Amino acid sequence: MKKNVLIIGAGGVAQVVAHKCAQHNDILGQIALASRTLTKCEEITKSVEEKGSMKRAGTIQCYALDALDVAATAALIRETQSQIVINVGSAFLNMAVLSACIETGAAYLDTAIHEDPDKICETPPWYENYEWKRKTVCAENKITAILGVGFDPGVVNAYAALAQEDYFDSIDSIDIIDINAGHHGHYFATNFDPEINFREFTGRVWSWQNAQWTQNKMFEVKRTDNLPVVGEQTSYMTGHDEIHSLSKNLNVPNIRFWMGFGEHYINVFNVLNSLGLLSEQPVTTAEGLEVIPLKVVKAVLPNPSSLAPNYTGKTCIGDLVKGQKDGQEREVFIYNVADHQDAYNEVGSQGISYTAGVPPVAAAILVAQGEWDVEKMVNVEELPSKPFLNLLNHMGLPTNIRDEQGDRPLHFS
Amino acid sequence: MKKNVLIIGAGGVAQVVAHKCAQHNDILGQIALASRTLTKCEEITKSVEEKGSMKRAGTIQCYALDALDVAATAALIRETQSQIVINVGSAFLNMAVLSACIETGAAYLDTAIHEDPDKICETPPWYENYEWKRKTVCAENKITAILGVGFDPGVVNAYAALAQEDYFDSIDSIDIIDINAGHHGHYFATNFDPEINFREFTGRVWSWQNAQWTQNKMFEVKRTDNLPVVGEQTSYMTGHDEIHSLSKNLNVPNIRFWMGFGEHYINVFNVLNSLGLLSEQPVTTAEGLEVIPLKVVKAVLPNPSSLAPNYTGKTCIGDLVKGQKDGQEREVFIYNVADHQDAYNEVGSQGISYTAGVPPVAAAILVAQGEWDVEKMVNVEELPSKPFLNLLNHMGLPTNIRDEQGDRPLHFS
Repeated sequence: MKKNVLIIGAGGVAQVVAHKCAQHNDILGQIALASRTLTKCEEITKSVEEKGSMKRAGTIQCYALDALDVAATAALIRETQSQIVINVGSAFLNMAVLSACIETGAAYLDTAIHEDPDKICETPPWYENYEWKRKTVCAENKITAILGVGFDPGVVNAYAALAQEDYFDSIDSIDIIDINAGHHGHYFATNFDPEINFREFTGRVWSWQNAQWTQNKMFEVKRTDNLPVVGEQTSYMTGHDEIHSLSKNLNVPNIRFWMGFGEHYINVFNVLNSLGLLSEQPVTTAEGLEVIPLKVVKAVLPNPSSLAPNYTGKTCIGDLVKGQKDGQEREVFIYNVADHQDAYNEVGSQGISYTAGVPPVAAAILVAQGEWDVEKMVNVEELPSKPFLNLLNHMGLPTNIRDEQGDRPLHFS
Repeated sequence: MKKNVLIIGAGGVAQVVAHKCAQHNDILGQIALASRTLTKCEEITKSVEEKGSMKRAGTIQCYALDALDVAATAALIRETQSQIVINVGSAFLNMAVLSACIETGAAYLDTAIHEDPDKICETPPWYENYEWKRKTVCAENKITAILGVGFDPGVVNAYAALAQEDYFDSIDSIDIIDINAGHHGHYFATNFDPEINFREFTGRVWSWQNAQWTQNKMFEVKRTDNLPVVGEQTSYMTGHDEIHSLSKNLNVPNIRFWMGFGEHYINVFNVLNSLGLLSEQPVTTAEGLEVIPLKVVKAVLPNPSSLAPNYTGKTCIGDLVKGQKDGQEREVFIYNVADHQDAYNEVGSQGISYTAGVPPVAAAILVAQGEWDVEKMVNVEELPSKPFLNLLNHMGLPTNIRDEQGDRPLHFS
């Protein structure tokens, strides 16, 4: 049984996390919010107050924190008596925040894999390069660390675990498909931090095929599916975090990730990438200023959290699983559909932030209640999926299934 | 009679100027080369030596100079005993270099209008905002200042003057058409300084129509012409320097500039411009670094002078003039065709640099010989066109004419 939550980060996902923690503060206890920029934290708490999200009376305490400073983070964890840390700051912070959790005994939850600012697309499996090196120390110190518990990675890992448990005797392939069929009304914008977003697509595309790591180029392989609610959608094979744990934890020979892109997105991406403007390596201007082009692209793009008020349409993210059950071939699509405007109305954020921000709060509740307080480092597919998906059914991210029996909501007793 | 030339700048155009000055150093005397970066000057002099461009034995002296420092530039003019200054540095330097010429009595030649780094596309006529404010002081001090004596502006102004003098009683329209039908083999590159290049297209498009200034947006108005050598080409109405003097100095109601762009160029331009990456106004990165996006785009693009070795194909730039002669309607196209590889073989530069760099040297020769040493500030159309075009016929930029009598070279006795 753990309580009191420290949220690290103050972007669009952190806003969702703050609202959802507030809605469940009877279970989670005190909530604190820390980021480099205090005013961004204060804007989030203002939104929480305006929406009346607090279940029990209380306030979210805000703190300015450089989360790369392990001692400062550990001190803040102690000061706020937080037993659960939800890290939804930059992916560059993970290892530092994890260190602070190990030092203080707090449970650690994040939604994306650690990245080194200077490196793009390292050798798979990516978790092996950073987080998994701490598996032993977590186990020795009984630290609960749940890695990648956003939507994808996160919920889609639980879908994969559920498929293996309930729907298949053996699985041939898991294709995770992520479609955002929403419209933000801008010429171009990314749905989360442009720096992290583009870094996903500028390197090689790693997929797990025939039980080995396979390389492709971005936008080299595509597929078209007729999906629930969002209809016919084209998506492209993309490197993504969850492949790097599912390939180790599930005995499935083919695990691929597909992200939907429109032609306009691809054109803008290709222009920027071809020119070298998505590079994380510094260039020097004629005036001698050293600049990382990607950071300038980030600076000119709309702030992802600013997209929320005018975002319309829906997302559809799910696992298309193929394999055998009782000697029969079958195909199952386990998925969620989220609506951008519903998300904005509830928590002031757009749908992509919503799908990423609700799951770590569900996970925090399960840690607080003990069910997921496993005292070791795990990925989501290693945990019981049903309590998690059941909780999400009631927290705004309901699970659906489409198989030979049709398309229906999925509930667990 | 003036002699000894100081070249300011060390880019692709300066390289052409240096070679061409060297080829005519019997008339021009000592040649000096100054830019912010000494090594760039030294690379140019090395190229001049390698090609054996010096007509008479001699060397080009190189100097490091911040040409915004008027006192330093004046001192260098005196030290090198230069009576002619060819300014082919950044367009941001013009007014400072002109000041140094006024102070020392040297003749001033440039190839592009002055620009303020912080401003884009000011009120027309552009020359009125900067250079023309010095007309009186130039006349009082007998300073020869020839503005915009590259190809366009420059040679195309001489074509316009020639058309008025020899081919028309009255002119209805002058359409200056600039087509680069060459291929540099890169994904994307600009043919001269990207910063100056893009600044031409990010503001309003000013044209002179029905004897008044008219505004359009970039890529809003286009035309297609069947041109000599380069064939059918689409070009877009573009703001350009020469319109701002021709509209004042010639009694012609319609003067427009058209630049050829391929669809790929326009796509890249539109993406960068729509995202705000061509802005001259600083943005601040998440890390707090203040950066001008356009300078970062410049930093990632190929250096224009690096394009030369693999550049193939031809340019076609000329004036399509319509009006009346002896009571008859007529249409005349006066133009030059230049070849990228020929330019590279002769002076180590690509064709765009070549067309911009040869004319100021022809002008310098005419100043040295006295014919253009007019002791006041002028634009090219105010000077006798035939000696200039005749000289260019022998310096690598021959003039052709296409009219009702066919297509032929144009010579003057």
